[in-house]
Amino acid sequence: MKRIMLTVGYDGTNYHGWQIQPNAITIESVLNDALCALFKENIKVIGASRTDTGVHAIGNVAVFDTMSRMPAEKVSYALNQRLPEDIRIQHSVEVLPDFHPRRQNTKKTYIYQILNREFPLPTQRLYAYFTYVPLDVSLMQCAADFLIGEHDFKSFCSAGTSAETTVRTIYALNVCKQGDLITIRVTGNGFLYHMVRIIAGTLIEVGKGKLCPTKLPCILDSLDRAQAGPTAPACGLTLEQYEFL
Amino acid sequence: MKRIMLTVGYDGTNYHGWQIQPNAITIESVLNDALCALFKENIKVIGASRTDTGVHAIGNVAVFDTMSRMPAEKVSYALNQRLPEDIRIQHSVEVLPDFHPRRQNTKKTYIYQILNREFPLPTQRLYAYFTYVPLDVSLMQCAADFLIGEHDFKSFCSAGTSAETTVRTIYALNVCKQGDLITIRVTGNGFLYHMVRIIAGTLIEVGKGKLCPTKLPCILDSLDRAQAGPTAPACGLTLEQYEFL
Repeated sequence: MKRIMLTVGYDGTNYHGWQIQPNAITIESVLNDALCALFKENIKVIGASRTDTGVHAIGNVAVFDTMSRMPAEKVSYALNQRLPEDIRIQHSVEVLPDFHPRRQNTKKTYIYQILNREFPLPTQRLYAYFTYVPLDVSLMQCAADFLIGEHDFKSFCSAGTSAETTVRTIYALNVCKQGDLITIRVTGNGFLYHMVRIIAGTLIEVGKGKLCPTKLPCILDSLDRAQAGPTAPACGLTLEQYEFL
Repeated sequence: MKRIMLTVGYDGTNYHGWQIQPNAITIESVLNDALCALFKENIKVIGASRTDTGVHAIGNVAVFDTMSRMPAEKVSYALNQRLPEDIRIQHSVEVLPDFHPRRQNTKKTYIYQILNREFPLPTQRLYAYFTYVPLDVSLMQCAADFLIGEHDFKSFCSAGTSAETTVRTIYALNVCKQGDLITIRVTGNGFLYHMVRIIAGTLIEVGKGKLCPTKLPCILDSLDRAQAGPTAPACGLTLEQYEFL
């Protein structure tokens, strides 16, 4: 028996998120089906991040156990043959049998994309949030800077979280603009339910001039979800990378 | 009666190209239907470029005539309300009644995108050609340079063209790489049937090391389609811009 770690990329548009659900197609269920068919074993993956409906990934992570003697690094190629083209394994490697992707110290990086122009671009409609209101990127960065470091992010967490603590550390939070595409890239030791989308929604309010960047410390201190901006739509969000420390 | 010019962006994935066909959904037919519904007139657009199935656009152009008194610059907003989200008007403006988008001197710009990494990225699968073979971008640019200027591009034209002459002028042809995405951007006074995709296919062969860049002048001189590279897939191609001179 060995444990194999997969790095999984997907277009979340046509899935009801990561986690298995009755009567809905999810990334986890499609992965399990492909692994069972490939190895003729009853395989169930353990995922690192249970992304929401419509959220994309370049580097989500899942592990599974198998009796197969297939070299771990060949699994990505074999599995991609059996997956739909909106899911693609990016890497496969053997890990220690007790490696659990949600019980490790990690650095996770998400990106949130915003298309900021007069009219939407059809080819970006599934991968970026669109707004025609001109966003001030330097104001957004100014607000973002207040969130870097260890804070209680309760104001940036949707109800329904099961997290024991709402304290998290953000290592980096950058807002950059290239043409009409604005990318928010955030790296942290973990993110609460909807946290990245609420950060994005709050920075968008700042960019529109509706919220002063200097309000960010008060929003953090309030520990009140109602003080932060709206939860930005799922389609703009991509889970970029997991680093296990 | 006035003539209005539309700049049209679309995701070509779900369309059988631009041109009206029986029993197939095309960009042109959807535009006509939306215009007829908006203005309650029998409107038929004249398109600038009849893009193929799966080809995308940011700036294709179409004109139509209407009796409506709606200001031309409002048409983009009104029409977008009636279009599916994979077609979006980017601009609308009144033009002279005899303006015909295919009988003007123009500069047209296309981009061809190539994703060059070990495994495909699902979110790029509909907008970039994927190859895992590492491409040498500087060799590709070296080959591209031979195509700049006025040439007979018969070798870069698929059979079935109705063009009177196969001489065209390329003003600029650049190959640039950003991360794992390679973009070929080409501007010319016009392009023959499949010309941009054959240029892309030929430059990809060069990038893979299968074709020496110095062969490009011989390929041009041969006036023989068989000497150039394959026609690269439609999904990588986007019509970026029309400039009317």
